[in-house]
Amino acid sequence: MRSSVKQKEVREAILDATDSLLSRYGYKKMTIDDLAKEVGIGKGSVYLHFTSKEEIVLSHIDRIIEQLKGKLAAIAGSDEKPEERLRKMLKTRVLHRFESVQHYTQNLNDLLAAIRPSFLARREDYFSQEARIFASVVEAGQQSGDFATGADAAEIAESMILATNSLLPFNLTVQELGARKDVEKKIRRLADLLLQGLCAR
Amino acid sequence: MRSSVKQKEVREAILDATDSLLSRYGYKKMTIDDLAKEVGIGKGSVYLHFTSKEEIVLSHIDRIIEQLKGKLAAIAGSDEKPEERLRKMLKTRVLHRFESVQHYTQNLNDLLAAIRPSFLARREDYFSQEARIFASVVEAGQQSGDFATGADAAEIAESMILATNSLLPFNLTVQELGARKDVEKKIRRLADLLLQGLCAR
Repeated sequence: MRSSVKQKEVREAILDATDSLLSRYGYKKMTIDDLAKEVGIGKGSVYLHFTSKEEIVLSHIDRIIEQLKGKLAAIAGSDEKPEERLRKMLKTRVLHRFESVQHYTQNLNDLLAAIRPSFLARREDYFSQEARIFASVVEAGQQSGDFATGADAAEIAESMILATNSLLPFNLTVQELGARKDVEKKIRRLADLLLQGLCAR
Repeated sequence: MRSSVKQKEVREAILDATDSLLSRYGYKKMTIDDLAKEVGIGKGSVYLHFTSKEEIVLSHIDRIIEQLKGKLAAIAGSDEKPEERLRKMLKTRVLHRFESVQHYTQNLNDLLAAIRPSFLARREDYFSQEARIFASVVEAGQQSGDFATGADAAEIAESMILATNSLLPFNLTVQELGARKDVEKKIRRLADLLLQGLCAR
């Protein structure tokens, strides 16, 4: 028991170190040796947890998404109006990621180019997990009469995820990643459009 | 005069050859020599038009976008209802690109990873050019009373571009690029959401 707790701590420490080293060296220059040194363990201990540098970085991104899902679920479970919950969730899915990579934006191109194929495949899972949380709120809004019924909640949720994906770090230039106010403005406008459309009332 | 026409033809021929060779070899393996041979000109003649392989590929993408802008302007100028025009334009901006890279989807990851920074910067121009065409239709719809007024047409147009960017080839996996029906379904649903929002009527 004790040892498995410790193993979990080591894993977390490796991911923390990944965060620092990505910002300090970037993906290409970061080595498993550097990571082991940063944590204060042997190189072999790193390999007890991960098989490769790519897997470490993907797990590091997984962790960012786990934190995000926690935030989204908390908003989804709040008692605000469904429209307001969705607005906050849309903003959160963009800004949580934005903040998570904020300190290594200069190195992000390098990282994403290196792990592109496996990262793209992984993203699909992230998106469906997020979509499920969004769908629960769309459904709640349809049942309460806040939203028009008839449309499929899961499909609407999927479209909302799709629509805001362009504001995720993967799609932003280094300049855009430096301009938080700009990204905030864009997600606010986009959320308005998604929630209200163009319909004349 | 005659010679400038011919120069334009050579330039187009180089871009046509780029399209074939990207599909045959991919970006990394394609050389300026290959391109010159494919066109039937000397390597020096290629350099009269372009300074590097990267510039050639970016110009090849520029050409795809020029064709797209022609299609968008034609729809924007038609006499259908503004909502219908926007729906078709959203679909066209996704599917035109989709079809343009259809024959080299296997090599697209390689290409986009190689030219990522300059491509990302270039995209910004494409997006604002498209947004201007969309804004003209949003404005028309606001004036005709089809859309709610009050919101800024240029901002709405920008949000529509942003919202559909996730369906552009840059964001799709090789599998997704092979699944046209799926992409068509996604853009249809997304366009519905953008045009009608979630508002109960």
